[in-house]
Amino acid sequence: MQEITHQQIILFFFSLALLIGLARIFGEFCKKIGQPSILGEIAAGIVLGPTVFAYIAPDLQSQLFPSSGPLFVTFEFIGMLAITLFMMIAGMEVDLKCLKKQAKPATVVGISSMIVPFAGGFGLVYIFPDSFDTQGKTMVTALFMATALAISALPVITKILMDLNLIKTDLGVTIIAAAIFNDLTGWMIFAIVLSLMGDTSGGFPWGTIAGIIIAGAFMLSIGRKIVLALIPRVQAHASWPGGVMGFMLTGALLAAGVAELIGVHGIFGSFLFGVALGDSPHLRHQTEEYMEKFISFILTPIFFASIGLKVNFLTHFDLFSVVILLIVGSITKILGSYAGAKICKMSNRESWALGWGMNARGVMEIILAIIALNAGVINDTVFVAIVILALFTSMTSGALMKISLKRRSKTSAATSFGRGTLVADLSHPAPVHVIKDMVLSLKLDHEIQAEIIQSTINREQLMSTGMEKGLAVPHCRTDLVKKPILVMGIHKEGADFDCFDNEKAHLIALIITPKSDPESQLELISVIAAHFSSKEEISKAMNCHSKVDMQAILNAADEMSEKKH
Amino acid sequence: MQEITHQQIILFFFSLALLIGLARIFGEFCKKIGQPSILGEIAAGIVLGPTVFAYIAPDLQSQLFPSSGPLFVTFEFIGMLAITLFMMIAGMEVDLKCLKKQAKPATVVGISSMIVPFAGGFGLVYIFPDSFDTQGKTMVTALFMATALAISALPVITKILMDLNLIKTDLGVTIIAAAIFNDLTGWMIFAIVLSLMGDTSGGFPWGTIAGIIIAGAFMLSIGRKIVLALIPRVQAHASWPGGVMGFMLTGALLAAGVAELIGVHGIFGSFLFGVALGDSPHLRHQTEEYMEKFISFILTPIFFASIGLKVNFLTHFDLFSVVILLIVGSITKILGSYAGAKICKMSNRESWALGWGMNARGVMEIILAIIALNAGVINDTVFVAIVILALFTSMTSGALMKISLKRRSKTSAATSFGRGTLVADLSHPAPVHVIKDMVLSLKLDHEIQAEIIQSTINREQLMSTGMEKGLAVPHCRTDLVKKPILVMGIHKEGADFDCFDNEKAHLIALIITPKSDPESQLELISVIAAHFSSKEEISKAMNCHSKVDMQAILNAADEMSEKKH
Repeated sequence: MQEITHQQIILFFFSLALLIGLARIFGEFCKKIGQPSILGEIAAGIVLGPTVFAYIAPDLQSQLFPSSGPLFVTFEFIGMLAITLFMMIAGMEVDLKCLKKQAKPATVVGISSMIVPFAGGFGLVYIFPDSFDTQGKTMVTALFMATALAISALPVITKILMDLNLIKTDLGVTIIAAAIFNDLTGWMIFAIVLSLMGDTSGGFPWGTIAGIIIAGAFMLSIGRKIVLALIPRVQAHASWPGGVMGFMLTGALLAAGVAELIGVHGIFGSFLFGVALGDSPHLRHQTEEYMEKFISFILTPIFFASIGLKVNFLTHFDLFSVVILLIVGSITKILGSYAGAKICKMSNRESWALGWGMNARGVMEIILAIIALNAGVINDTVFVAIVILALFTSMTSGALMKISLKRRSKTSAATSFGRGTLVADLSHPAPVHVIKDMVLSLKLDHEIQAEIIQSTINREQLMSTGMEKGLAVPHCRTDLVKKPILVMGIHKEGADFDCFDNEKAHLIALIITPKSDPESQLELISVIAAHFSSKEEISKAMNCHSKVDMQAILNAADEMSEKKH
Repeated sequence: MQEITHQQIILFFFSLALLIGLARIFGEFCKKIGQPSILGEIAAGIVLGPTVFAYIAPDLQSQLFPSSGPLFVTFEFIGMLAITLFMMIAGMEVDLKCLKKQAKPATVVGISSMIVPFAGGFGLVYIFPDSFDTQGKTMVTALFMATALAISALPVITKILMDLNLIKTDLGVTIIAAAIFNDLTGWMIFAIVLSLMGDTSGGFPWGTIAGIIIAGAFMLSIGRKIVLALIPRVQAHASWPGGVMGFMLTGALLAAGVAELIGVHGIFGSFLFGVALGDSPHLRHQTEEYMEKFISFILTPIFFASIGLKVNFLTHFDLFSVVILLIVGSITKILGSYAGAKICKMSNRESWALGWGMNARGVMEIILAIIALNAGVINDTVFVAIVILALFTSMTSGALMKISLKRRSKTSAATSFGRGTLVADLSHPAPVHVIKDMVLSLKLDHEIQAEIIQSTINREQLMSTGMEKGLAVPHCRTDLVKKPILVMGIHKEGADFDCFDNEKAHLIALIITPKSDPESQLELISVIAAHFSSKEEISKAMNCHSKVDMQAILNAADEMSEKKH
């Protein structure tokens, strides 16, 4: 280890801990307030980078996050690895079968949602060449801005549709298919733009472009078939999940290497490899999870945080660039998508929703921008404006879709329990008393409590809410609460809730939901019934000593039910 | 990215792909032939390193795996990160409660299994100072060799006990408790030896030793309490599993950084942090899995392969050193453990088994050796000898324990199916015919087939083997086969196996086991019944088109059943 000093080792551990720790904390905070976690991850980098930390303690900052030397190089490579693997995961979300089934609307919406912003971005650079600091390469910069505005973020869109419970509806499938079309063609175009950027000879890089098209076509036909044939073999002969995980990682890295050899960015290769992988019916869902969690929760936050480390967001913030990009980017994208949807004879309401959805740029646009920044095609000011456009569109599109479709988010058990209480010492065997004890633990007016008790008991007497394995879910709908409330009760001896399997109820989940939100009741019941369907999970819950313990369990329950959709 | 050239990026992707790919392939191969996968991972490094690859193509090798420059530094840091996180996972296996319960035997066996090899290693260096190339620092080298021979590998031992189904027996718990004691004290002593190594002033490093003891005591008392209190809070307020995963990683890195600040190796810190984590009843098993799979299947192979990259195993192989270390290391360890077991009044058979078990050095010893090599305490020749000792003891201890205890490994469904067939086109509704069709698909003598058919039908008529959700498991014991055979059948229309739930059987697993191995029947039935307990899994199996597809599924089934123990 002749080249690495002891001090660098110490710095490596602390700077990586700071980067991951702060990125996760800020990311979690953003998620909590309903915003994409990438917003927090970039913010963590901004705090640790030139914008804040270097302003307060420049010496310490440049030691922990230097801009040259072994630590800098290592973080660069780790970030590159992170984004390469992230793009494989993103590629796996591309469902080619879905694209085939919805070929017509996908193509129409896909093209029209790209052409309009593409023209917008292209025109913008020619109209305001000074703002984009084109340095003579106006054509390349214009092509880049065109692509940047045209691209959509499939992962963000998927997430929004899942949250709104739309992922399996006709509208959801159309949006996803259009976004897939968008993604595939967008990255192809971007790869070509990149090869134009990298070209210093002045000539048109026909070789690279031919390479891109051949490699892309190969990966989506023969390459895909090879991958699909290999996966069951790896799963049959290698240990699980280690064998397939190794295969996925090695494949993604090789594809990235080949892409770099051709002359395009490595992420293009790992993305296409991911597309080929994602199509496999053999790949076990669990294997995907093992790969995805580590990559998206640990590795990618390092990449996004490192963005904030590179650029001073304060000094390079230019109001004009930000506003013009936001306006042109959003309007062209939304109108293009709307027009495409109307051509496909979708309703007004749905067409607008589709426009808001396609407008989400998220992660993809930021990756695009950082590559362009590194290649010297855009300057720091334009970079900051693009990042803000990406974040702003991701932050707003979910809410706007909700309004257009009059949709609501799914009810969270953990949040509902946050408004409720944990009653850990239930002892009376009769359901009526159990319900009473649980409702009385809530901080509500006596009259409201009395009414809730009465209506829950009425419901209980209609038919018992005892389920299997020792779970009971008494519930009522009432106008007296405005948001769902979940009260959790633990009954050591067991209450007589007349369960299917004649067992006593040990875990009681009392569900109080507003009449104005009729779906929330069923949603909470199904999350709870699905999670507490085994003796093991129920006994885990019964060992809770505090509200925090129970909240942790319900948090996992929400996450699990999310996963199933 | 001023410091990283395009060529380095290409090399980075390819060298990482080669390293991970080859390490996984060799590792899988070793697992297949019943050897620890780390053996293959190190072998992959040897092939890619100076021993083989550099001999064949020195230029290409030094480009892909340079010994200085940005790529070298990055791989060093990634390896360091890998081993730091691996030690956190190893620490999580340390069950302090188990240690408390078995305090007496753990202490007695733990101490006697350390003192004897400690003395052996210490004496060895003083007797053969030339072989150990002590360079004047005889005392430090002797202390290191003493520690190296005294340490056991908790992860390897745990794995062997799991494989032999002993993990929850009295013997198993005692071995684990002793190994935990061994691990904790061994690493403490090693930390002190390391601080002696690093000391250049010549004085005794009281400060570092005090630091180690204070930090260790803090982490196992107050630090542990803080971690235990934080986990449910993180799980309650952050997203799952991202929140806890970020917490674990940040904590491990911070602990490593603090350890380095004190003056000991970072792995000491992350190991203790892991010990504190592992004790938490709140940490969900699934979260552990998400962390563990990526770390142990992707990251640690990089580290072990990089060991082979550093040293030429051929030129530094010295028969005398290897043999003397193997003999002294094994004999002292086994006798020490045996003596301790006898003091605790264990039977002869069990005492020997314990000796073989504790002799497994595995991963831990190799980590120790690489640190000593980097610190200049041992030379390449001694390093190679220690690695061989570690691998040899890990390879043999499982087999020797098996013989001592007359134990057998658990029956694997995938391996049994390897001897069987897939009959994908069953059509006759009667079980008698189904059984006939399945047995006839086997390449066996007609007489043997006839007898197997008869005895399976007899068993079936005694009581139907139809289970729930469309699964049937006809089976028989016979002297005509020497190893368990599993035949899988798919029946689209369904056969009348008289299932509990009155459904027809669509997936039929015919189990033929030798009379000499009575346990194998129940083991196979339980693996299959557990895995195919849902309609989803059954319909996945019914979509199999080839033997390879089905083998992949059964491989996962084996793995899952392993996990539950």
